Formats: sequence, C-alpha cells, structure tokens
Amino acid sequence: MQSATDRQEQVLAVLHEARSEGRTTLSPLECSAVLRAYGVPLPREGVAQSAAAAADLAEDIGFPVVMKIVSEDILHKTEAGGVLVGVADREQAERAYRTLLSSARAYKADAALAGVQVQEQVSRKGVEVIVGAVTDPSFGKVVAFGLGGVLVEVLRDVTFRLAPATRDDALSMLDGVAAAEVLKGVRGGPPVQREALADIIVSVSQLVSDFPEIREVDLNPVLADAGGATAVDSVMTVDFAAQPQPYRPSRDEIVSAMQRIMNPRAVAVIGASDGEGKIGNSVMKNIINGGYAGELYPINPRADEILGKKCFKSVKDIPGEVDVAIFAVPAKFCAAAMTEVGEKGIPGAVMIPSGFAEVGEKEMQAELLAEARKYNVRVMGPNIYGFYYTPANLCATFCTPYDVKGPVALSSQSGGVGMSIIGFSRSTRLGVSAIVGLGNKSDLDEDDLLTYFEQDDNTQVVAMHAEDLKDGRSFYEVASRVSKKKPVVMLKAGRTQLGARAAASHTGALAGDDKVYDDLLKACGVVRAYSLNDMLQFARGLSVLPTPKGEEIVIITGAGGSGVLLSDAVVANGLSLMKFPQDLDEGFKQFIPPFGASGNPVDITGGEPPTTYERTIRFGLEDDRIHALILGYWHTIITPPMVFAELCARVVQEGRDKGIEKPVVVSLVGDVQVEEASEYLYERGIVACPYTTELPVAILGAKYRWARGAGLLG
Amino acid sequence: MQSATDRQEQVLAVLHEARSEGRTTLSPLECSAVLRAYGVPLPREGVAQSAAAAADLAEDIGFPVVMKIVSEDILHKTEAGGVLVGVADREQAERAYRTLLSSARAYKADAALAGVQVQEQVSRKGVEVIVGAVTDPSFGKVVAFGLGGVLVEVLRDVTFRLAPATRDDALSMLDGVAAAEVLKGVRGGPPVQREALADIIVSVSQLVSDFPEIREVDLNPVLADAGGATAVDSVMTVDFAAQPQPYRPSRDEIVSAMQRIMNPRAVAVIGASDGEGKIGNSVMKNIINGGYAGELYPINPRADEILGKKCFKSVKDIPGEVDVAIFAVPAKFCAAAMTEVGEKGIPGAVMIPSGFAEVGEKEMQAELLAEARKYNVRVMGPNIYGFYYTPANLCATFCTPYDVKGPVALSSQSGGVGMSIIGFSRSTRLGVSAIVGLGNKSDLDEDDLLTYFEQDDNTQVVAMHAEDLKDGRSFYEVASRVSKKKPVVMLKAGRTQLGARAAASHTGALAGDDKVYDDLLKACGVVRAYSLNDMLQFARGLSVLPTPKGEEIVIITGAGGSGVLLSDAVVANGLSLMKFPQDLDEGFKQFIPPFGASGNPVDITGGEPPTTYERTIRFGLEDDRIHALILGYWHTIITPPMVFAELCARVVQEGRDKGIEKPVVVSLVGDVQVEEASEYLYERGIVACPYTTELPVAILGAKYRWARGAGLLG
Repeated sequence: MQSATDRQEQVLAVLHEARSEGRTTLSPLECSAVLRAYGVPLPREGVAQSAAAAADLAEDIGFPVVMKIVSEDILHKTEAGGVLVGVADREQAERAYRTLLSSARAYKADAALAGVQVQEQVSRKGVEVIVGAVTDPSFGKVVAFGLGGVLVEVLRDVTFRLAPATRDDALSMLDGVAAAEVLKGVRGGPPVQREALADIIVSVSQLVSDFPEIREVDLNPVLADAGGATAVDSVMTVDFAAQPQPYRPSRDEIVSAMQRIMNPRAVAVIGASDGEGKIGNSVMKNIINGGYAGELYPINPRADEILGKKCFKSVKDIPGEVDVAIFAVPAKFCAAAMTEVGEKGIPGAVMIPSGFAEVGEKEMQAELLAEARKYNVRVMGPNIYGFYYTPANLCATFCTPYDVKGPVALSSQSGGVGMSIIGFSRSTRLGVSAIVGLGNKSDLDEDDLLTYFEQDDNTQVVAMHAEDLKDGRSFYEVASRVSKKKPVVMLKAGRTQLGARAAASHTGALAGDDKVYDDLLKACGVVRAYSLNDMLQFARGLSVLPTPKGEEIVIITGAGGSGVLLSDAVVANGLSLMKFPQDLDEGFKQFIPPFGASGNPVDITGGEPPTTYERTIRFGLEDDRIHALILGYWHTIITPPMVFAELCARVVQEGRDKGIEKPVVVSLVGDVQVEEASEYLYERGIVACPYTTELPVAILGAKYRWARGAGLLG
Repeated sequence: MQSATDRQEQVLAVLHEARSEGRTTLSPLECSAVLRAYGVPLPREGVAQSAAAAADLAEDIGFPVVMKIVSEDILHKTEAGGVLVGVADREQAERAYRTLLSSARAYKADAALAGVQVQEQVSRKGVEVIVGAVTDPSFGKVVAFGLGGVLVEVLRDVTFRLAPATRDDALSMLDGVAAAEVLKGVRGGPPVQREALADIIVSVSQLVSDFPEIREVDLNPVLADAGGATAVDSVMTVDFAAQPQPYRPSRDEIVSAMQRIMNPRAVAVIGASDGEGKIGNSVMKNIINGGYAGELYPINPRADEILGKKCFKSVKDIPGEVDVAIFAVPAKFCAAAMTEVGEKGIPGAVMIPSGFAEVGEKEMQAELLAEARKYNVRVMGPNIYGFYYTPANLCATFCTPYDVKGPVALSSQSGGVGMSIIGFSRSTRLGVSAIVGLGNKSDLDEDDLLTYFEQDDNTQVVAMHAEDLKDGRSFYEVASRVSKKKPVVMLKAGRTQLGARAAASHTGALAGDDKVYDDLLKACGVVRAYSLNDMLQFARGLSVLPTPKGEEIVIITGAGGSGVLLSDAVVANGLSLMKFPQDLDEGFKQFIPPFGASGNPVDITGGEPPTTYERTIRFGLEDDRIHALILGYWHTIITPPMVFAELCARVVQEGRDKGIEKPVVVSLVGDVQVEEASEYLYERGIVACPYTTELPVAILGAKYRWARGAGLLG
C-alpha cells in the first residue's frame, strides 16, 4: 500500500474526473486505480485498443488471460458475449479482440467501445466471497461481507459493520455469516487466508470513510484461498451531493441539559388546566400526586390558580429560574409558546402535543425545532406521553403516576409501547428510574437518553423501543461506550419488510435494511430484543441478574422433562452446557439418587425432598468453575413450591453473603402455586418464571449477550 | 421404467448377491443397476478391464467421458487420484486407464482393483442437488432432498418426507429447502425441470419402501437443469438384519380399550390407602372429590374400608366388571398385580409407579408389559401422574382435581410438563377434556390417544408434549387423519443436539434428527410448538379461534407503534397482510381521521373514541374478502380498556349472530387494566393478550398452520 497522501491523491484524481463528467459510476479502470491505491489485490490488467496491443498486453501479464469489452453502454457484459476466459496465447488474444468487438456491435450497434480489457486469469481455486460498502440512511458508511453466489444472492447470508472497520471487526465478519464454516475449508480443502480477506474489508471500509462521495462499492467476486485473496471484479457508484450534517451537541452539553430536564428544580406546565380529563390537568395532577418536591408553575392566561398553585399567563412572568417546560397546548400554539420558553432561558421543552410530523405536518415540526434551536432549547417529542423520573418523584406525563423506584430506565418511540411499559412494570412491580416517550424525536433521541443514563447512578439497565435511529452512527458511538458499563436492550421495530413498510407510514422514517441494524446493534454491545414482551422481560431480568464471570452453565432439575426443554433453550439462546470434569459429576451424584442422570443437566429426579435441591444448588454455587445456574423446579408434594422458593432464595443469599454472585434463573413447572413462588424468588434477585422453560433461559442468554459484548467474559 | 415385477426381480438379484457375500454396501455398478430398474436417469457407463476396452467403451458412450477407478478398498476416489474428467478421445482414454491404475496402486499398494468405470460426462449446466433416503429409528424409511455442495454440507439445508413419497410430496420438497429459489433459476438462468427431480425423489422413496433391506441411499450429486436431471454418483448401504415389528392394534381395538380407560363404569385403585400424603390416598381422594359417579374399588390387603369405600384384597375379589385399574404400589409389586388385573379381565392399567425404564430397570418394564400383553391389557405409563377425563369427572391422578370442562385434550411424556399443563390451565381457566401422562410409554402412546380423541366429541383440540415418538410412522398415519378434523399441537422436546442428549439420558429414547421431526410433523398436519409456553398458549387459543376461510388478514390498530410490531409478527409467523383494493381502503378511511395511515395496517390513530374502534372492526368483520382481524388496542382516557373489551366482544358477537365467524386476535398495550380486559375478551372467544404484540399473532399463525395443513384454505 502507498502512503496515505499518495493514495488519497490518486483517488481524488479519479473522483475529480467522474465529477467533472457528471458521472455516478466509475469505469472498471477507475475502480482498479482506486482499489489499487488502497492496497486491494487485483488481477494484473490493462486496456488494449488493437488486437496486436491486446496480444502484447496479454503476453506481459502472462497467459491465460480473461478479456472483456469495455463500454459504458454495455452493463451486462456476459450477456453481450463481451467476456472471454482462458485466452491461452497471442494468436487467441488477437482473435479474441476481434470477436469481442464484433459481439459488442452485434449486441448494441451504437455502443461506444473504449477498448478491450486484458486481465490476468486468477487461478485461485478457493471460495468466492463478496466485499462491499453501502451508505446507510441511518448509520452512514457501512462495510459488507458475504460468501458469493447462491449464499448471498438467495439466502442473503451477509454481514455488516460500521466503516471504518478495525481489523478485529473485519475478522469478526468472517465468522459473522451463517456459512462461515466454508472459509475454514470444505471437503478437506485448506482454509482461506483470513488475514488477506480482513485486509480487503478494512481497506474498502477505509476508502469509503475517507471519501464519502463513494456511495457504494461492490467487489464481486473476491476469490480467496490459502494463498491470499484477489478482487476479480468491482463496481463503484459515487454521489457528489452534499450530505446534511447531523446535529451533535457535546456530551457535556447533553448531560447538563438532560440533567435539568430529568431532575429539575422548577417545572412549568404550559396549558395547565382545572378541567377534568384535559391533558394539562392530568399532567398537573400527576406531578403533584407523584410527590414532586420542586417548584411547579401552571401556565394559563385564563386562570389565577390551578390545583392550589399560582398560575402565570406566560413562562416569562415566572419570577425564578425554570428548568423544564411541559407543553400541554394544541400544536398550533406551540411555536409561540416555544419562543417564550426560549426567551425565558428554559433549557428543556417536553412536547406532549400531537399534530406534527406524525400527521404529515412536517413543516410545523421543523419550524418548532428551528425556534427551539435559536434559544438552545432541547426538545423531547412532540407527540409523546411525557416522561417519568422516579428519583425526583417526577411524573411529567398524562398517564397515571408510577412509584416503584429501581434501576431500570425505559424509553419508547411509540406511545402504545410506552403504555405497555407502564402496565407491565406496574404488574410486575418492576423498579424503574425513568420512563421516557420519544415520539417524533424532533430533537432528543436515544443517543441523548443513553448519554444521560450513562452518568446517572440511579440507572443500571436501559431498555429502548425504537422504530428508527435518526443518527445511527452517533447512537453506535454512545452505545459502544455505555454498554460497557450498563446493559442496553433495544426493541428495534420494523424488522421485517412488512413491518418496515408500516414504520414508514407511521413516522416517515426510512427504515434501513434490518440486517444492518442487527449486526451493528450487536457490534456496539446492544442486546436486541425481537419482541415487545422480550424487551420488557429482559429489562426486568437483566436488572436482577448478577453478571456471569464465564460461560460454564449448569442445569439442575427435578423434572427430567424440564431438563430436556431447558437444554433446548440453552442452545436456542446461544449458550452451552458445561462439560463436567469427573470430580464435579461425582460431586453432584453424592446428593442425588443412583438412578438420577449423571452429567449436565443434573437430574435430581422428581421424588426428592427439599434437601436435595438445597444441597445441589449450594454445591453448584460454591464451585468456582461453574458460572451460572439454571434450575428446573418440579412441583411435588414432597417439595411444594413455596418450600422450594424459600430454600432457593436462602441458599443463594448465603452464597451472596460469602461473596458468591452468580446468575441463577429458575423455571417452575407445577400447579398455580408456582406463580407465587416465582414472584417470591424474583423479589429476591432470582429470575423465576412459571409454566415456561424458555423465558428464564432467554433472560440469562440476554445477560450473556450483554456481558460478551462488554468484554466481561474475556 | 420397467414393469414392477421386472424391476423388483433385478433389485432382488443385486440384494441376494450382496447378502450372500455378507456386504453392507453395494458396488457402483450394483447401485446403477438398482437405480436404473427404478427409472432413475443415470449417465451411460460401463466397466473396462483393459486400456483398449476402456477406449472402446468410451467411444460407444461418446466423448468426453469421466473415468474412475473401481475398488472396494478405496473409499475416497478423488483423494486417491482415482477420477479423471474430460477424457476426450481414444488415446486419452487409454492413457487415463493406465494413469488410474498406477495412481490407485501408489495410493494403496494392496487395493483390490476391479477395473475402471467409464461414464458419460454429464453436460447439464444447472444445479447440483442431493436425493437420498435414510432409515429413521422412529419413522422408518424417509426420503431426503437438498441442494448440493455448501448448502447441504455446511448449512444443512435439507428436507425430509415419509417414504414412499407421493408426487405431491416430492414437489413440496423442492419448495421445502431454504434455498428453493435456486431451482427457479438464478442469475437469469432457466428453472430446473421440477418433474424430473420429483420423479427421482418418488423413485428413491419407492425403492427403499419396496426393499427395507436398503438402509441408506445417497444420490450425490444429481445434476438438474431445464432439460432434466441425472444422478451422477450414488452410494447405497444395506442391512439384512430383521427389523422388529411394532405393536399395532386396530383402530377399533384402540378405541374400545381407550373408551373403557377414559370413561369407565368401574375403577379399581391398587394400593389405595388411608395414609395422608401417600399416592394411593391422593388418587382415591381425587377420584372421589372430582365427582366421579361410577363404581370405585380400593384394593389393599390390609384394610376393610378406605375413605368410606369397601376395600378388596385383590381386583379378583371385586364382584362386578372393572374397566380400569390405577396402580399406586411400588414397582416391585406391579407385575403380580398385573397378573391379577389380567385374570380379572380389566382392559386398562394406569401405571403411576416409577422405578422402571427411567431408572434403568428396562427389563422389569418389559416383563410388566409382557404380562399385560398376555391378557390384552393396555398400559398407560409407568412413571406418570395419571390422567384426567373431565366429561366423566374422573381425576385418576395424584395431583389436585381439575374441573373446568372444555374442548382441549393435553398429554405429556414428562410429569413436570404435565404439572405445568395443570397449573397453566387452572390459572387461565382453560376448558379441558383430558390431561394424560404418558411417561415411559411402555404401551399406550400418542397414536393411541389421538385415535381416541379423534372420535371423542368432547375433544376439539389436542396438544401433546413428546420427547420421542415410539412409532413415528404410526403416529404420522393417525395424525394425518385426525389433523384434518381437529388441530393437533406438539411440543417435540430434544430439538437441539444438546436437548437430544438430555433426552437420551432421560428416557433412553434415541432422538432422531430434529429436522426429520420438523418436516414430518408438518407434513402430517401437526402444528409444532417450539416452546412449552407456546404449546400451552396454542392449546388455549386454538380452541377459541374459529377457522379462517382464507389468507387475507387485516390489522386495525389504535397505536401506530403496535401496528409496526404486529406487522413484524405477521411476517415472523408466516402470515401476510391483505393488499387493499381501493374500495376497502376508502371504506376504512371513512371512519378514521384524515391523518390516519391508509392501507394495511389500518391506523385509526390514538386519540379516537370507542365508536372508531367499533366501526372499523365491524367493517372488517362484514367484508367477505377479509378472513381474519388482528387488533392493536391502545389504552387511552377516551377509550379505556374495559370499554374497548365490551365493544369488541359485542361487535364480534353481533357478527357471529349473523353467521360471520372470523378469527379475531387482540394485542392490548396499556396500563394494568388491560389484563382484565384481555381475560374478558378471551372468555368471549377472542384471543387477547396484554403487553405483547407477538403472542396473539403467533396463536393466529398456529391456527393458520393447522388450517393450511388440513387443506381448509384451498
């Protein structure tokens, strides 16, 4: 590879040419020049303008060669008879030159012919792969890798990373496709040279990062074998239109504004009302009934007092400082109110009103935002239910108050999902730090919330519902940092084409290819939930489970049948069961009947008394080699549900008292009493679920996905 | 193809030869002979013993040819340099002959060389596929189809059907692999000739069915293109050991025995007891407290009366006829008691005791069964909780009574799963006809239960948990018939390798390849549940949902966010949203605000009053072109949960009164009141689930899977 300056100059020259000619694609030779500058291995090649020149060129390159017609007017060269392979000597090369020209003319009489490309015939007998780059509407430049042919075309077996990709990113991509095994050599063949492929991925990702004008790159195929990798064919498109720059305040700016919004000393409610059933009335009541201790200023030009609080005509009339203004007036009055908020120097506006972009009023929303930006007001919403921040006893929402404090912060783009968060949390007594509606996300979005929750000691787990990410690249950066410290769960809706279509009609957001989201969320350490209920269950479970210290998992079960289903769930969730060293096997066997199954799952069998559960659980907790326990409880007369729950909680607590912190999840199968037992256990920091062998393992799996992404498992 | 007699004679001759030589594989020429007899297209070929003969043969066949060494001692011909392709003329053929012989000798000096095979070089430039057959431990002969190369080797993209396969089965296999699109032509190529491939699949499946001695067939590759298909290479193994014949009583025999077991006039409890906490006491109490109205005879040599019932020393002392004996004595006493049961002429034995095959006592179990067979006693268990049959108020189990009668019959192989069935059913007030424990399945198994439930008017839905199927072929036949009339759901445990390993240690059952189960369950119309909770939810939901009349599904949602998630769930469950004709779109739009999203999902928007839900649901129900409704309710002040539930139930009932029976499923997002609303709706025949957008759609998807399998959707 050449020096960074040299290679950039070479690419710039090519791009300049394309731009001056108003082109959106680069020619094959231009592609080669650009790729060569970035050190991508290509076949030796050149373009000949005569049969004799072609023969000379081929001789220079070395036979056999491939010869291709060069014409901007012929897109599908093969179809036009414009490619000849295996050209073996000078005579054949001269003949091939003439054949290609006449084929091209026969195919399209008026095609402009720029000559014939003569290319080394790459002899690698390995695997065909594809390396490419695209410009994603949310994440920007993204690099892609897949196996060639049917795998990528029919099965869409392809993986993405943010560009520029590191060498580790690139190597992880080689394992990130379903057919990864192929690269390790099939039918006894040798493995491909992974480093060579990683080099190409890194180079392509660097290229599009250095030159945003390069919209798409497609190296297809790249031939890879044990000796290296060569990009045999390439296509590039360019786009010289200026890209809009996203609004990116600094981390400190975000935190200080969010701090005042979430934890304000004074709140104004614009459109506060005495009228039962009005949003401005509900918001006032909730703030008061929720126990908010700061100043509360109702704003309403037609009232002197609302719910016992002195009322002001405008925020500008308020004597002291105000940290956040909750808007509860119709959309058409918001712009004027925003000006007053700005003039008053209030840093946060919570825009409950609907009637903006979600109903097609994009311009009204843009104007509102422009007004807010003028005064540096951060805007939550519009079109939201508001937000809760329980450490401040603040219920700035028209929904009912929520008072179970705890470490989980949740947000939703959709109001319906937000209501589910509230209902589920209340039903399961989930301890919450914040619930935030993001709605139209005219300004504040997931990155801002994450940036705030990162430094918020009241929040230990973040769970978010999103239909799109306005600025995926910024989210990626923040999430990469936050997820190292706190689990971040995301329910990304619109994951199927059908879903994506509904998303487009709902928020006007263009959803990118879901696989891009899937790979990039994983790469930045976010645990993706694929269903609403999973998001809620993960939020609940992850806040309770300690972080595992390793991958060795043991199932202890009273029901052999549960053991089988739990094992199924272990595999389905990307976990694996510990292979027992002999002493561990013997250790467990000392507590269980002789006919209990040895190995993992530890099947203690169904007729056992509480002591058998107790001893095996304790044994599993106390052995350092075991990192997590999955328990399968079976309701029997000998060990009833609450007896099990009590002993299980006690043994786990004894372990904690000795400094043993391991994730323990329990599946309880039995009669209705297992419901109470599950609640008892959950309240004591043990994930426990009745009538399901899958959910507790899925929650454990989510914790592992997070811990792996955060690099906590080594 | 030749006449059936001719072809059978040819195969018999080959098999006779292999058998007499004690071989387990057929030679290439034998394979060819067998396949040719069954009409499988093969390359022209022959074996030569000299260079000159090879040249003659090649000339006969026509150049180019492929030449291969023939040696039983060389398994991997390619590795040994034993295959030469593109042999173009006589001279090359002679040279190839000598090269092959010396390569073979260099590879393995003492290899017995049977000559050189000369084969037409098949010129099909299409797709490589694999057709094969295996002998599954549960289903017997099974035919397999997959795409060749990486797809089948690395991604295991293969599909199975019971042999013999019909032509329709075979054609369905071509669509049954993930990469099916490849067969339709890739990169603009023409599609392969489907009929030619189906012919080969049918032939192979017929061959192994006609000759059970043929254990495995592997045609790999079969080259297929627009002109036909040719099996280029084949391997066959044979096994002449006699296969055990499964016990298969007739349908009438099963029904009449099961009738007496499930709906008995007189029950004996062997090991009945007064002792609190003893199984023989629990069983007695449950039968009495459950309200069983027939005769009940406690059997205990050391008591005169138990729980107010006259006690007998032996079943033989009972004066009248007895239909079923419940065993509640330790395993070691069972055989003697079984003899008495047999002598008394009792047709059914319910073996609650454990201590048999599940703890390694296989012989004891076999002896018990042999004793039962002697007297034609059908045996349920051993190692079970017993069973419930609610139409007879019969709780023949040591668990607590269950009294919510309804149309769902459930069974489980595992006791733990059985307890979950009871707990979940009680918690959701699921109407049940039967709950049956199958345990070790020494005799009665899923086929018997299905055969009984088929003709049982009290049962409309059957849900089963199984770790293995003792006789998959028999199950397939019964399920194919029953599933046409009543939905059959199965949770097949041990679906992952890890799970399968635990199954083996649990029941000693050899779990077959899970993909075989997956394909064959689907092919016989069974709806497979992949989790315990899904099985329970499907059992509940399927019994409530009417059968859809077609595939056109409409989402009506108050929350746009739910609409997106519901759409995701639609795709994830193999359903699709109706594309609206213009009049339908306009029809819905007349009821919703102008900014509501048009098309499907119908987004009525969040702030709407009850009338908007009511009108749009009614409109959706009354249009004949719409076959099912998915509703997304969003909790608002304007339309609270119970108001929605009441109107929804009312509108659906109005439809039913007019003869409109369509599946309606509802996702309710909102505060805790949505839980009560969901129950209200479920009780009124509308599947409704709180805090989840996935579950109601999954239940609808299960109903569709069943209806499609039963051929009810045309």
